Amino acid sequence: MIRVTIYNEFVHEKEYEEVKKVYPQGIHTCIANFLKEDSDIMVRTATFEEKEHGLSEEVLSDTDVLIFWSHARQDEFSDEVALRVKKHVLRGMGLVALHSAHYSKVMKTLLGTSMTLKWHHGETERLWCVNPTHPIAEGVPEVIELPMEEMYGEFFDIPKPDDVVFAGWFSGGNVFRSGCTFTRGYGKIFYFQPGHEEYPIYYDKNIQKIIKNAVRFVNPVVRKESDLECVGQ
Amino acid sequence: MIRVTIYNEFVHEKEYEEVKKVYPQGIHTCIANFLKEDSDIMVRTATFEEKEHGLSEEVLSDTDVLIFWSHARQDEFSDEVALRVKKHVLRGMGLVALHSAHYSKVMKTLLGTSMTLKWHHGETERLWCVNPTHPIAEGVPEVIELPMEEMYGEFFDIPKPDDVVFAGWFSGGNVFRSGCTFTRGYGKIFYFQPGHEEYPIYYDKNIQKIIKNAVRFVNPVVRKESDLECVGQ
Amino acid sequence: MIRVTIYNEFVHEKEYEEVKKVYPQGIHTCIANFLKEDSDIMVRTATFEEKEHGLSEEVLSDTDVLIFWSHARQDEFSDEVALRVKKHVLRGMGLVALHSAHYSKVMKTLLGTSMTLKWHHGETERLWCVNPTHPIAEGVPEVIELPMEEMYGEFFDIPKPDDVVFAGWFSGGNVFRSGCTFTRGYGKIFYFQPGHEEYPIYYDKNIQKIIKNAVRFVNPVVRKESDLECVGQ
Amino acid sequence: MIRVTIYNEFVHEKEYEEVKKVYPQGIHTCIANFLKEDSDIMVRTATFEEKEHGLSEEVLSDTDVLIFWSHARQDEFSDEVALRVKKHVLRGMGLVALHSAHYSKVMKTLLGTSMTLKWHHGETERLWCVNPTHPIAEGVPEVIELPMEEMYGEFFDIPKPDDVVFAGWFSGGNVFRSGCTFTRGYGKIFYFQPGHEEYPIYYDKNIQKIIKNAVRFVNPVVRKESDLECVGQ
Repeated sequence: MIRVTIYNEFVHEKEYEEVKKVYPQGIHTCIANFLKEDSDIMVRTATFEEKEHGLSEEVLSDTDVLIFWSHARQDEFSDEVALRVKKHVLRGMGLVALHSAHYSKVMKTLLGTSMTLKWHHGETERLWCVNPTHPIAEGVPEVIELPMEEMYGEFFDIPKPDDVVFAGWFSGGNVFRSGCTFTRGYGKIFYFQPGHEEYPIYYDKNIQKIIKNAVRFVNPVVRKESDLECVGQ
Repeated sequence: MIRVTIYNEFVHEKEYEEVKKVYPQGIHTCIANFLKEDSDIMVRTATFEEKEHGLSEEVLSDTDVLIFWSHARQDEFSDEVALRVKKHVLRGMGLVALHSAHYSKVMKTLLGTSMTLKWHHGETERLWCVNPTHPIAEGVPEVIELPMEEMYGEFFDIPKPDDVVFAGWFSGGNVFRSGCTFTRGYGKIFYFQPGHEEYPIYYDKNIQKIIKNAVRFVNPVVRKESDLECVGQ
Repeated sequence: MIRVTIYNEFVHEKEYEEVKKVYPQGIHTCIANFLKEDSDIMVRTATFEEKEHGLSEEVLSDTDVLIFWSHARQDEFSDEVALRVKKHVLRGMGLVALHSAHYSKVMKTLLGTSMTLKWHHGETERLWCVNPTHPIAEGVPEVIELPMEEMYGEFFDIPKPDDVVFAGWFSGGNVFRSGCTFTRGYGKIFYFQPGHEEYPIYYDKNIQKIIKNAVRFVNPVVRKESDLECVGQ
Repeated sequence: MIRVTIYNEFVHEKEYEEVKKVYPQGIHTCIANFLKEDSDIMVRTATFEEKEHGLSEEVLSDTDVLIFWSHARQDEFSDEVALRVKKHVLRGMGLVALHSAHYSKVMKTLLGTSMTLKWHHGETERLWCVNPTHPIAEGVPEVIELPMEEMYGEFFDIPKPDDVVFAGWFSGGNVFRSGCTFTRGYGKIFYFQPGHEEYPIYYDKNIQKIIKNAVRFVNPVVRKESDLECVGQ
């Protein structure tokens, strides 16, 4: 059983009508619904408004994989909780960071770079699989067309990924490393670009398949119960 | 002084008027001309029609970096010469493989994969730098637009590159790992996709800058005088 | 069900008493015996003496993962069969190459380098896990001591591995990248250094665990029914 | 001209007689002396006791490559200065982190992991080059023996390096990724394990050669004048 916690900021869905229409119960509920189809996955959710953003020590200790979507409140996100998430990733908890979560405190502290990129609303994306032997690509077509998506473009200031699984083509002329894996400590990370809140990206069956594969890929091989220390011997 | 040998098949330029117009003296001469601008580079050329394709043991022993363009005669290329090139790369000779040379015997035997890809004539390419700290990217703009180029598209069946320096965006909807480095033995390899024979790609100042940077990057750090062997000790 | 074929040359075990004592029924039988403990693995074996070395088109088409041990007859191994194995790896068949198989025709044609290294009989090896989040490291202790093993030492002339999972320390003063993954086409490869024929390495429970993990890791994500070709579109 | 700033904590050399004997004027002076042999390198030094540890905005803006040795005062090192160093690395400044600097605030914030390892005083190290084509390995022998060094051992909790150039063998039975490159933003980083303060490591001509090569390798390809930002377009 993989214990998944889905953190979604859940602000845009309440503030903007056009987002509410797409995700009336929030992005987290949409993701929870398709993950629940799989009997080996157990889901709980957390949002910005909850105490400690719903990511208490207790919750994270009981989480194998954290899915993370955030945007409007990234600056207000608690420093302490960001460091707590980092701690659990270094001990082994898997992390699937979606779309604008590239710019979250969690991702910045784990990856160490500025995480900057180019962006533009309202383009067509074609998502190409450039690493078909990767477990995250299992059962995924070689190209997925997203008629409307926010463009994210290079140069994307990330450390060299362990693997680039998907590359995005955007109608306006940009490319992007759209699906990237990283390892930090005992934790595996998958960053996945699609998922602008105004477009129904997370209802796409192929996008759902990728997120399900990612959950299994970042599910820890080993989990440490305390922080690592330098060991004299 | 970097001793560069430019191998160009030199068949299309003689057989097709539209290619002859672009490269009246052959692609090799065009490349030689811009490399000669740099006083630390010494150039010689070789073509398919020459004895041993101009790539004798003597020539390769006297070559630091081999630039390689081929297409129409790849099947007829001598197996022996292909293995000779491989031998020299493993001993340290640098290799810059251009455009359709991905499918040459030399590249196939060095990389070990099928080297297959998708292709289509006559699209616009935008070549994005996704690795701006790489020496091959020095002084190169973040995006280069090639109004007309042959599309090469993923999935490109190559081993995982050491580095992907450039990613190609094509107007028809494809992406490509357009500039990739590999190491084999003591030799460094740069594969660079632009350069279809019907379009004046190698006259572009930015493309020239990339090829000059690549020559310096693959120039051997160390060169062995004989093949490596397993050593009991 | 993972269909595993174990190719073992099976020459040393018949020619040398000291090897026969360790593996009276051959290395392949020892490996088959521990793999059979797992109900999701189906095993068959092949040896050098068999027709086409037991690796006919039919056998390979029916194989998900090929385990490969060879040494004394590597030069006499059929070129045709080596290319056949390569073809199936490029289409997706997994490959686990053990010990001296680094120098087999199969590995040389897939990896493209000389595959040379340093060697010396009769040292103690300590095998360190340097990549504990890798699936091949699951359930494996951080260090495995092999009281007697053949030293394999750097410089090991391989392309940059996708991942180095294990690093070997040898009592005489050498180090080695002892467990390395590679991808070629749709096929995953794991090279694993331990397994000199005079020492009972493959009876070690931790070594067995690593090989079992490797079988699952290289088990194909996708399998192609024919060779890839360049596709005009 | 490469403008190098050598930061050395310079505490052990004043507090311990045995360290003072080895580096009477501090590790920074020893490193400065051998770097000054090269006419393309300009050197200045900085120490913990200086205002802002000698690493003011002005100094870092005027630095191409920062060499960094620290140990006893890593906890007391200014958070603000650590972030300033990070900022300059992301903009392109090169960083050569030596020995115990793996555990500095600067390295932790750039790499994102715990940076933990095993350690033990007083072993023999053999430093093997496992990447002889890397520019940092130019002119360096395949193995360097350090009769007395502090053992640093795996598991070393770092992100996957861009390249592992050197691997350390220690007489007590440990191995270590002793020379690793990373990229963060526009900055290149080389971490190099040798250099315990009680042993005359930085007087070794081969160690000096490696540090000189590293300075040239991390010297920026491009330098940004301000922090990167996400760019809407």
